[in-house]
Amino acid sequence: MERLFDEELNKLKEKLLRMAGIVEESVALSIEGLKDQKEELAREVIHREESVNLLDVEIDETCLRLLALRQPMAGDLRLITSAMKIGVDLERMGDLAVNIAQRTLELLKAPLLKPLIDIPRMAKLAQAMLKDAIQAFIDRNDALASEICKRDDAVDALENQIFRELLTYMIEDPASIWRAVGLLLVSRYLERIADHATNIAENVIYMVKGRMIKHNIDKIRSAG
Amino acid sequence: MERLFDEELNKLKEKLLRMAGIVEESVALSIEGLKDQKEELAREVIHREESVNLLDVEIDETCLRLLALRQPMAGDLRLITSAMKIGVDLERMGDLAVNIAQRTLELLKAPLLKPLIDIPRMAKLAQAMLKDAIQAFIDRNDALASEICKRDDAVDALENQIFRELLTYMIEDPASIWRAVGLLLVSRYLERIADHATNIAENVIYMVKGRMIKHNIDKIRSAG
Repeated sequence: MERLFDEELNKLKEKLLRMAGIVEESVALSIEGLKDQKEELAREVIHREESVNLLDVEIDETCLRLLALRQPMAGDLRLITSAMKIGVDLERMGDLAVNIAQRTLELLKAPLLKPLIDIPRMAKLAQAMLKDAIQAFIDRNDALASEICKRDDAVDALENQIFRELLTYMIEDPASIWRAVGLLLVSRYLERIADHATNIAENVIYMVKGRMIKHNIDKIRSAG
Repeated sequence: MERLFDEELNKLKEKLLRMAGIVEESVALSIEGLKDQKEELAREVIHREESVNLLDVEIDETCLRLLALRQPMAGDLRLITSAMKIGVDLERMGDLAVNIAQRTLELLKAPLLKPLIDIPRMAKLAQAMLKDAIQAFIDRNDALASEICKRDDAVDALENQIFRELLTYMIEDPASIWRAVGLLLVSRYLERIADHATNIAENVIYMVKGRMIKHNIDKIRSAG
């Protein structure tokens, strides 16, 4: 019985790893498609959405089954509810990669406004955050998770910089506006992907330590 | 024991109702602040974030306690895991209202680009979706929940229309760009608020019917 439970938990972890792998690759492909103007990459990302969605539902069902049949306590309970929440974040990240791909298909109708440097850099940061957040989950590594939360600031800073730069383009050349707005939305999507990676990392800290860190809740409560 | 459990479930529902009420009002205030150029409303929304975050953590903790101590089965289990997920959606909606308020503070530095009509209309639709989604949760009303999912299309259509209109403003008058981009982001935030309301409604259907409807999963599986 105990061994069966461990096996099922391992399968759950494997599914999350697989889903995270697909999502991470989708983010990479969506940005590569945009940067190198390759329509087929954008289409590939859109095509993958279905497998991400299937895994999302499978993870949800596995978690519910484990909760219902095994009635886990403390640590295992936190692991399973964390897995449920991580599934939600991964699914949204997959959607955001699809949003980038759809935006790319629009943007491919004209040459790029400029060679992309900061957007691919931002994507790399977000991808690494996702990869490490899932690793932190598998390894129950709360130190790594804390470090990931801090990296979100670098992504936000980059997004602000891109935002200001694109505004300048728009003001100088109104004909560039729709292309600039497209890139601006892509950078927003990347920023949200990094936010979801941060959510996952916060969940890992909660799972390992058994206490909430999101919202600086300790501080608010002790002040209340 | 049974009665105590029911009492705890009722408390959980009350907390979700309270949180939804605050979030709904925050969305309304954030848009009113923007539309009527009232800085104090934007500041009020930002100020409320803390109470939303506190409720989010309280709901999470209540759900975990119920799962751990009561080991609920079937229907109650789905109710509790749905409540956890709804809490996450509400918290994100609260964040999005704060994003609108922050954007409003920026936009208040100059007169509005134009009197706002479609953005407040979009906000009204999103607010009603949220209100009804929570009601559907409380009443276990899956018919209402299905209807809410369909309303999301009207919000998306309105967002597209706003998007095109703002692009026209930008192209005609480059000096309007930063104000138009600000409004464009606000309409994106509203669209995401409506998406979260849709997530809640999908969760309600799952809770009541015991089957997934998101991602058209039935169709994908029967095709697979």
